[in-house]
Amino acid sequence: MMVNAKLDMDDGRRRAVIERITPSIDDGRFAAKRIVGDAVVVEADCFTDGHDAIACLLLWRREGEAAWHETPMAPLGNDRWRGSFAAQSVGRYHYTVIAWVDHFLSWRHDFARRIEGEDLRVGALVGAGLIENAAQRAKGGERTRLKGWAADLRAVPDAQALRTLGLDEELAAIATRYPDRRFAATYPVEHPLVVDRERARFSSWYELFPRSASPEPGRHGTFRDCEARLPAIAKMGFDVLYFPPIHPIGRVSRKGANNALVAEAGDAGSPWAIGSAEGGHTALHAELGTLEDFRRLVASAHTHGMEIALDIAFQCAPDHPYVTAHPKWFKWRPDGTVQYAENPPKKYQDIFPFEFESEEWRGLWQELADVIRFWAGEGVRIFRIDNPHTKPFRFWEWAITELKREYPDAIFLAEAFTRPKVMHRLAKLGFSQSYTYFAWRNTKDELVEYFTELTQGAGREYLRPNLWPNTPDILTEYLQFGGRPAFIVRLVLAATLGANYGIYGPAYELLEATPRDPGGEKYLNSEKYEIRDWEREAPQGLSELIARVNQARRDNPALQSDASLRFFPVDNGSLLCCAKSDAELENLVVTVVNLDPHHVQSGWVELDLAALGIHATAPYQMHDLLSGARFLWSGPRNFVQLDPQRAPAHVFALRRKVRTERNFDYFL
Amino acid sequence: MMVNAKLDMDDGRRRAVIERITPSIDDGRFAAKRIVGDAVVVEADCFTDGHDAIACLLLWRREGEAAWHETPMAPLGNDRWRGSFAAQSVGRYHYTVIAWVDHFLSWRHDFARRIEGEDLRVGALVGAGLIENAAQRAKGGERTRLKGWAADLRAVPDAQALRTLGLDEELAAIATRYPDRRFAATYPVEHPLVVDRERARFSSWYELFPRSASPEPGRHGTFRDCEARLPAIAKMGFDVLYFPPIHPIGRVSRKGANNALVAEAGDAGSPWAIGSAEGGHTALHAELGTLEDFRRLVASAHTHGMEIALDIAFQCAPDHPYVTAHPKWFKWRPDGTVQYAENPPKKYQDIFPFEFESEEWRGLWQELADVIRFWAGEGVRIFRIDNPHTKPFRFWEWAITELKREYPDAIFLAEAFTRPKVMHRLAKLGFSQSYTYFAWRNTKDELVEYFTELTQGAGREYLRPNLWPNTPDILTEYLQFGGRPAFIVRLVLAATLGANYGIYGPAYELLEATPRDPGGEKYLNSEKYEIRDWEREAPQGLSELIARVNQARRDNPALQSDASLRFFPVDNGSLLCCAKSDAELENLVVTVVNLDPHHVQSGWVELDLAALGIHATAPYQMHDLLSGARFLWSGPRNFVQLDPQRAPAHVFALRRKVRTERNFDYFL
Repeated sequence: MMVNAKLDMDDGRRRAVIERITPSIDDGRFAAKRIVGDAVVVEADCFTDGHDAIACLLLWRREGEAAWHETPMAPLGNDRWRGSFAAQSVGRYHYTVIAWVDHFLSWRHDFARRIEGEDLRVGALVGAGLIENAAQRAKGGERTRLKGWAADLRAVPDAQALRTLGLDEELAAIATRYPDRRFAATYPVEHPLVVDRERARFSSWYELFPRSASPEPGRHGTFRDCEARLPAIAKMGFDVLYFPPIHPIGRVSRKGANNALVAEAGDAGSPWAIGSAEGGHTALHAELGTLEDFRRLVASAHTHGMEIALDIAFQCAPDHPYVTAHPKWFKWRPDGTVQYAENPPKKYQDIFPFEFESEEWRGLWQELADVIRFWAGEGVRIFRIDNPHTKPFRFWEWAITELKREYPDAIFLAEAFTRPKVMHRLAKLGFSQSYTYFAWRNTKDELVEYFTELTQGAGREYLRPNLWPNTPDILTEYLQFGGRPAFIVRLVLAATLGANYGIYGPAYELLEATPRDPGGEKYLNSEKYEIRDWEREAPQGLSELIARVNQARRDNPALQSDASLRFFPVDNGSLLCCAKSDAELENLVVTVVNLDPHHVQSGWVELDLAALGIHATAPYQMHDLLSGARFLWSGPRNFVQLDPQRAPAHVFALRRKVRTERNFDYFL
Repeated sequence: MMVNAKLDMDDGRRRAVIERITPSIDDGRFAAKRIVGDAVVVEADCFTDGHDAIACLLLWRREGEAAWHETPMAPLGNDRWRGSFAAQSVGRYHYTVIAWVDHFLSWRHDFARRIEGEDLRVGALVGAGLIENAAQRAKGGERTRLKGWAADLRAVPDAQALRTLGLDEELAAIATRYPDRRFAATYPVEHPLVVDRERARFSSWYELFPRSASPEPGRHGTFRDCEARLPAIAKMGFDVLYFPPIHPIGRVSRKGANNALVAEAGDAGSPWAIGSAEGGHTALHAELGTLEDFRRLVASAHTHGMEIALDIAFQCAPDHPYVTAHPKWFKWRPDGTVQYAENPPKKYQDIFPFEFESEEWRGLWQELADVIRFWAGEGVRIFRIDNPHTKPFRFWEWAITELKREYPDAIFLAEAFTRPKVMHRLAKLGFSQSYTYFAWRNTKDELVEYFTELTQGAGREYLRPNLWPNTPDILTEYLQFGGRPAFIVRLVLAATLGANYGIYGPAYELLEATPRDPGGEKYLNSEKYEIRDWEREAPQGLSELIARVNQARRDNPALQSDASLRFFPVDNGSLLCCAKSDAELENLVVTVVNLDPHHVQSGWVELDLAALGIHATAPYQMHDLLSGARFLWSGPRNFVQLDPQRAPAHVFALRRKVRTERNFDYFL
């Protein structure tokens, strides 16, 4: 960063300047994220001193490719340039920008403004020299043509003919292909880009405790039981089936039901207290089944259009084999015990965290990466990472980058509910998706502010929100007190505000709403600590509505990404209206939700028709994808009334074309 | 930028993260600017994984100092930290931030929350170990005290006594002075900072053609004549007296009066056509006087509280000695002539630009830097750089940085009227002040938008505006058609919106307003091409008003910087109201200007009293520093009427304290 005192730098003649490349996360320290097939649009401020013309190229390559691909950039005005390339495959890319003062282009611009005869002649000679230089760089027929052009420019005596010759467009196009790039300036930071498969941007998660999957009350669920449940989960429209940890559960300091400090005989313990004499993070809890059963389940899920996502919780029960095999991976206290996890006065006696400042940190990092590598080897590609914010950021950056080099289709979801900058750092360093504060954003103002920030703030380039209305740890007050309408409202919000969302079931579709403690948000008789027998076909259950919501998501590209989200005014603070569209504004979905689960609310929705590409006066059809009802709207302001007991939300497909007499055969 | 595939990095245990340092210009690529005596406030996002406490220090040093100074940073909430250091001398500084996970601080936070006896005992032992480590790093008496503290923590049996001992504040302060910084993370970019003397932020310029300074009509002005004019210019309150080039003027292709292509015998030529047989950029135009005269003038200006600023125009007349001595510094055309400056169809036949892509660019750079070095050697410290945007950015960055290493009190004003990003680049790379678009911002909306951007946009850290209502090249339409009121309006705006401003005189104070061409903005009979005899004491002249405006600037710190500028609403589009304050809100200046030079305008000004630190109901005094009149205002809304023929502007000193009966001796 020091400005060199000596004149030994090579760049004194590099007159072009490149600034403010976008996308750019911390000046290229971290990768922007895109999906395979996306056009990666890159912009930069490029300019030079004086009046000379410049040329700019976008340079890009897949990691591992030796040479840059080059794509011309076009000026947008105000010294801003834009180019793009197609992200054709998953993996890591880099891009930067090169620019140079182009003397041929400058000459051409200048020559076009020359009027007088003598002036034209000298100008033509200058151009001939530049074109001869370009000919030296050209090959074959193009070289010959450029040489001929230069010779003609030196020979033609007639001013008008000289003008026409000098400004020949076809010859100029050839010369432009052979620029003098000796003094080209390249932006010094090669910006990284991560290209993921589509599921990183659009996914519908269903969280299930396999041990509760048994159809027989009292029997421990198995992978075979999960297999049997696949059709029902697929029918609801989910494409990611996520399991809490499936490894042996520690016996030492095991927690009892409802997080009791001492387990009773037969208590199942928390699946997050990983490891026992039977094994650790690469072993399976024996009662769930064998590795063979697990493989079968993974394969079977695929046939139902689903993937199994595993929970990666890097922590150990006191009897995890690591504790004796690698004592330096833990923090030992002066009393000879290992420091268990705690956040005084809260204590987690059944869990030992790793000591990442250990002098054996390299071995620990390798082992942890190998855990994920093991499950990737078993066909798992989606990992929900438990509490990543309690392990070093640098570890995740290294592990995710390395693992994605081997498995570029891997997806990592960061389960961090913590401070904003920590959440953002995790997303920046490589997590594909991130849990959010959605569970605690309930009012209209909260939702509008938070989702505007998520979809339009700096994080839009690297943080993909994944919205969960509930988790095994989070039963919000809104769900506790709002009844069935609250569950519908939060489902519709999650599924339409977020292209990625998930529910923890069957608690969600069965409307489980009883907290362990008044004022708390933990479930009573939580599956974290005991096996639950779920009533399968509750008459009030939401399975069918969930299926309709997920179908709407599948049918409408608008709902499959977040960048287009925008909110529209409604003159009632309980009604929220938002819309999403695809890039071409061909598919439009407008959601209107009554956030009040107790009362009928109505109001006037005010759409920004111009932004949605709708004619100001033509009518348009609003097709409610939940109820099937169709409404004819026109103009920006239209009336909506939502009864929470009947239907607390509309998810409208907006159709611009309404049939008129012009569509009628005889009209033509 | 590649994430390292191998685990050979040393930073696996550096868990602290540092992001988003401010001020930061292009992530430390360029220097922020401050004035000697300023507190340099630096902020950063600093955090770590998990619950551990961190400590952050601001590291700073003057260029050349081997070791960093360290200043503690304090948390502001939301993981933002702030620290500051005093910029005690002019020159170049660097700063960055270091942060680490502080196990002693974490332990102390944790220990305070421990309740049970056994828990306290183990906690005390953990603390004792950390304190013993700190003792190893400490010296002398502090080492002894820490050792004693650790021993006591191991020995004390009573829980309450242990708590008190563990939380001892004095001992904690000692331990905190010896942190374990083995795994500290330092932000990798050392951010540069340029500290200038105060005149870089606050200056009042007067531009004068020395050749027109003669009191005898028809005689060529001299440095001696300029010396005689110093008292009058000082009386107007200016502190920078800026001369167009004072070097030999080329004879070849010399321009005549009013830019005539062919000069007549005796025509003076443009001072910007530099160089003749008599010499070039380090020579003096003989008719102005000798180097001895110039030195006398420089010294004499100082005794009047003024500095001489020179015009650095890096271009040559065709007969400049460089052209024959260094032919490769110019661009030769196929017809054997040098390419003169042009912007077709405009031509500047009397000026040869340098060819910066010359293979002899190193020699050219050195020579040009030496030109400035020469004049710096003659005591000049302020340089107005002519058209810097037509020379390579990299040249200026090198030259200014090098010259300021030798002359850290040097000030460079960029005379660039060009595209916004080019203007910003020049300011970023080192220019101390910048000309602006002020001359073409006349309406209220234009002024509010532009000056809000200048004082609150990204440029506030590096671009110091210098406002000129006129220059020898710019006689705006507003001045041409607005008469005396227009000259007053633009003077007051320049002098109050900008802590740095200047006028080109005597054209300005003598209200010169005749353009060369209708619709153009060039002066008729411009001093650029001929010597003018100015009528000295015009009865309608603005000298006295200018003196009052400059006196207001000197008396009021509020007007000596730009950061505090804010605008207030007036319910009349012709009235502009703005205010500036010092950092402590002790000195407040409110300007109200009638932008309409033709009609009386009146309206209600609405001050933001809270922002100005004024009590909502108490009256306050508005003392017009131009007319001397005093008004008593109260509340946010007050009436103003401005008659352009009498006084088109108020420059109010706002005084909070109005005398009441409580100030009366007998009241006490």
